[in-house]
Amino acid sequence: MLKAADIMTKNVVKIRGSATVAEAVQLMKENGLRALIVDRRHDQDAYGMVTETDIVYKVTAFGTDPKRVRVYEIMTKPCIVVNPDLGVEYVARLFANTRIRRAPVIKGELLGVISITDILTKGDFVERPKEVVLEQRIQEAIARAREVCASKGTNSPECAVAWDEVEELHAEAAHQKAEVPQQKKTPFEEYCEENPNALEARIYDS
Amino acid sequence: MLKAADIMTKNVVKIRGSATVAEAVQLMKENGLRALIVDRRHDQDAYGMVTETDIVYKVTAFGTDPKRVRVYEIMTKPCIVVNPDLGVEYVARLFANTRIRRAPVIKGELLGVISITDILTKGDFVERPKEVVLEQRIQEAIARAREVCASKGTNSPECAVAWDEVEELHAEAAHQKAEVPQQKKTPFEEYCEENPNALEARIYDS
Amino acid sequence: MLKAADIMTKNVVKIRGSATVAEAVQLMKENGLRALIVDRRHDQDAYGMVTETDIVYKVTAFGTDPKRVRVYEIMTKPCIVVNPDLGVEYVARLFANTRIRRAPVIKGELLGVISITDILTKGDFVERPKEVVLEQRIQEAIARAREVCASKGTNSPECAVAWDEVEELHAEAAHQKAEVPQQKKTPFEEYCEENPNALEARIYDS
Amino acid sequence: MLKAADIMTKNVVKIRGSATVAEAVQLMKENGLRALIVDRRHDQDAYGMVTETDIVYKVTAFGTDPKRVRVYEIMTKPCIVVNPDLGVEYVARLFANTRIRRAPVIKGELLGVISITDILTKGDFVERPKEVVLEQRIQEAIARAREVCASKGTNSPECAVAWDEVEELHAEAAHQKAEVPQQKKTPFEEYCEENPNALEARIYDS
Amino acid sequence: MLKAADIMTKNVVKIRGSATVAEAVQLMKENGLRALIVDRRHDQDAYGMVTETDIVYKVTAFGTDPKRVRVYEIMTKPCIVVNPDLGVEYVARLFANTRIRRAPVIKGELLGVISITDILTKGDFVERPKEVVLEQRIQEAIARAREVCASKGTNSPECAVAWDEVEELHAEAAHQKAEVPQQKKTPFEEYCEENPNALEARIYDS
Amino acid sequence: MLKAADIMTKNVVKIRGSATVAEAVQLMKENGLRALIVDRRHDQDAYGMVTETDIVYKVTAFGTDPKRVRVYEIMTKPCIVVNPDLGVEYVARLFANTRIRRAPVIKGELLGVISITDILTKGDFVERPKEVVLEQRIQEAIARAREVCASKGTNSPECAVAWDEVEELHAEAAHQKAEVPQQKKTPFEEYCEENPNALEARIYDS
Repeated sequence: MLKAADIMTKNVVKIRGSATVAEAVQLMKENGLRALIVDRRHDQDAYGMVTETDIVYKVTAFGTDPKRVRVYEIMTKPCIVVNPDLGVEYVARLFANTRIRRAPVIKGELLGVISITDILTKGDFVERPKEVVLEQRIQEAIARAREVCASKGTNSPECAVAWDEVEELHAEAAHQKAEVPQQKKTPFEEYCEENPNALEARIYDS
Repeated sequence: MLKAADIMTKNVVKIRGSATVAEAVQLMKENGLRALIVDRRHDQDAYGMVTETDIVYKVTAFGTDPKRVRVYEIMTKPCIVVNPDLGVEYVARLFANTRIRRAPVIKGELLGVISITDILTKGDFVERPKEVVLEQRIQEAIARAREVCASKGTNSPECAVAWDEVEELHAEAAHQKAEVPQQKKTPFEEYCEENPNALEARIYDS
Repeated sequence: MLKAADIMTKNVVKIRGSATVAEAVQLMKENGLRALIVDRRHDQDAYGMVTETDIVYKVTAFGTDPKRVRVYEIMTKPCIVVNPDLGVEYVARLFANTRIRRAPVIKGELLGVISITDILTKGDFVERPKEVVLEQRIQEAIARAREVCASKGTNSPECAVAWDEVEELHAEAAHQKAEVPQQKKTPFEEYCEENPNALEARIYDS
Repeated sequence: MLKAADIMTKNVVKIRGSATVAEAVQLMKENGLRALIVDRRHDQDAYGMVTETDIVYKVTAFGTDPKRVRVYEIMTKPCIVVNPDLGVEYVARLFANTRIRRAPVIKGELLGVISITDILTKGDFVERPKEVVLEQRIQEAIARAREVCASKGTNSPECAVAWDEVEELHAEAAHQKAEVPQQKKTPFEEYCEENPNALEARIYDS
Repeated sequence: MLKAADIMTKNVVKIRGSATVAEAVQLMKENGLRALIVDRRHDQDAYGMVTETDIVYKVTAFGTDPKRVRVYEIMTKPCIVVNPDLGVEYVARLFANTRIRRAPVIKGELLGVISITDILTKGDFVERPKEVVLEQRIQEAIARAREVCASKGTNSPECAVAWDEVEELHAEAAHQKAEVPQQKKTPFEEYCEENPNALEARIYDS
Repeated sequence: MLKAADIMTKNVVKIRGSATVAEAVQLMKENGLRALIVDRRHDQDAYGMVTETDIVYKVTAFGTDPKRVRVYEIMTKPCIVVNPDLGVEYVARLFANTRIRRAPVIKGELLGVISITDILTKGDFVERPKEVVLEQRIQEAIARAREVCASKGTNSPECAVAWDEVEELHAEAAHQKAEVPQQKKTPFEEYCEENPNALEARIYDS
């Protein structure tokens, strides 16, 4: 599964908060960028970001002279940031939940910027949609759990652990779809009906 | 002053509402576009639009298979539309007020699409910010009004009309800046104090 | 199907942006109106609108003297506008999506204003709800398509075109209901199962 | 100062939550109303309200048949309610803060409904704007406080209480205008500079 | 069913609007509270509230000195208020609809404050969820209605009234779940199919 | 200046996404917590969080049985996260901008949770408000810059660097206050007027 670091844009251009918006526009045009990063000044400081939308909504829309507005007046700071290891689908979910379109990718230091366009053009959600991937992994986990329980016994801790994994994958899939599966039985519950004493194992385990 | 038609993108690619999101992604990648227009079927129908943000927020974020989602499920329809004659600053203001980033440009038929990026890269708001342009026009209108009132008399309808024009430009500038100038005197009020009977002219006029 | 022009209010009263809010209130009371249009000054200019809600939220709520506030300080400009040919259900959808309650109706020039109240009192959505109308049209289109395919052959372009029309109506109905029908087969897919070679026709066609 | 009870609409029409939206539309048309109240069933129950906006946004916009939708599916319940004694400017502020346009007026039982239109057409905010009224009351309170302090002594509790009243009115006026007066001296602080030992009185008092 | 008065916090601490935010912080720390009530000055006045969130969002976030900001600059006034008799689930629904986390409980005078935390820690929604309670009451009402109709006759007004009660409970349950049951038959409709002339009774009755 | 790590709550209680909401409520009551963390399952996974507000808004408000809802159905995932080194004022600003009230503190691994209540009760924004701290630092930096420029010469790179630092602090202070200082001269511009050739130095430097 692709993660943020795999598809982010590494060509990050920075600007000082005290630069003018006119300077920011020129820098964006020269580099073909739609956003610039406003750097931190010290460790407790936060990253900022200024985007084409900030400029159009807050400067152009008011007819203001971009030479008389500073970047810090219109930037977003602190930014919502993304961990480079985060899966691309979770980046998309974070963006959807917080209504943002790009974010700095940070681990200790600034590594890049990831945007909606990066996800669309470099992601693999068309070729490998997560619902399909998860469904496969659930099937594999079920097969594995049935095998473990058969060999170790339905009361064994190993059996309980194996079914826990199935249930967690099931929960991840349900959360991903924002679906409400509570009325349906989970694979573990179905298994429990077939093997009524399996439930005990799990209670002892947790 | 530039208008929407001057900077819009004329290369519009359309898609059917019943196409899959996977098809939309491919079409966007092939054409280097971040949005597609969903065409009208008849005169009472509305234009729709599907953007990279729709796809990432509503499909990728849920891990759904883009081959199983149709465009009409995630598109925005009807769209907010822009008149080709609208000044670019007003397009920016409309975008800011309604929190959109692009819109079809329509007059009878679809002429193009205008986006935040078009405004940033093709607009002239850095070279010719509207506040500067308006300030010049206000100064010119004041000079003209003083001239007209001097030659036609401060009680003449021509004088009143000339100051009306100043006041309207003043209102436009104030609205543009979202500034509240009510406590300050308008240029007309200042003129009235110098020429106390000018006020009458205007009352007769309106 | 009714369109915006059929139910809009043609009695539009305009006000200057530089008028006071006190003047606007008087004009609204005199004419029994809940909104006034702020006219354009030139072709690149935008229409504005000032409503009872603007006045109560932005003037009354702050206890401000309406004689000291100008209309342009509280108006919405530019407005979201409606094409006179747009179907009433699409006007309703546009209003719902953008959280507005009225809009100027414009084609080249200002023709009227359409509001939630116009839709409720003059619309025909109770007598002729769109879901019922569309269902009828889908049934008719299916009958027509089956007929065309029978006479021209399931591989004929005419057959493919006829089913395209069905599918588009189906998409419109699904979009109208904001429903997600992807798991169910479309009428065309059902037809294809009955006539397996029909699919080819369509691929050749598009 | 007018209060909610003075300008509310007493002609309230109620509907059952299980009625259809088609019935609600008819009732609204017959009575020339833009909203209906959905009554409580018992004391712990809440009032509901269904408005023309609910109907257009949630039924018409989706083309749904209003005979097949019940009022409880689209109503707002519980409502934000208004106390009949609340000043009209505070009703306006509550509406602005919570983005509503009408509310039931309740004290023990339902007394009426108050709307934006009631405030606009029956309020006295044009004739008697609150900022003017408060300014007068502040001037009167200052005169009274100066008088009390002169007769009772600047260290007297009566003097402190009188200035407290001034300060509270000042705070109310500042809150009404949503203005930030902290850098300026309050009338009490000015008085204290003239009468340095007045401050003590207040410290003892509170 | 628990109501607001049963779980509200009665230990309400008040502050004057003209107090500084620094004083508010101290008062909150001393009393272990997350909100203070700003009292009314007269009957037409509204209650205000200042919370930890107001202070952190509007003072701390801007680095402003809390000794230089007054409570009225950051408080919410008027507040959304809660009737002490309102059922706890309706308080939760009101909070969810209006995105608030606490509200004053008022009947004539201020009785307490109810918050999300009160609902979580003192409510009985885990032990007695409303959907379960309502389901029981619906079953009881159906049994009662069937009994009444059997003894009084399916055309009797008593029978109609009894089924009305069932339908209202059904509507309440459906509204509670935000569910759309229109396609399904209501218990009354099922009863009508068994007893076709029952419908008349109800038409005569209403 | 305090940072997130200094005031966060280290006592974090975790729950599995597949646990029921009833279990979450019990865990919160037992631990006196208002939020639980939903742990990651692998490195590309995201942290989730479930709060009292999620439970009251999404379960209690609908009367749903908490034993039948799973945590993953109502949790927020991914969360907005906070770096442990981030200054507390920036945490407050991030919370205000994104309308959140708590966030996990993460650096590689989960270190704690920081909330509005932590900021209010453990922060030092009353004793040491950032505007006061920054003002001191600006004054110190100006003194230092004047000193450096006096000893190294107004054209020296050291002088330019020293004034850059002043300007950056000035920008930080202006951003913190969300104030627009562009019309006023910056300290550097004032210095430049006194020392006209200082400007060159800076141009050469950057």
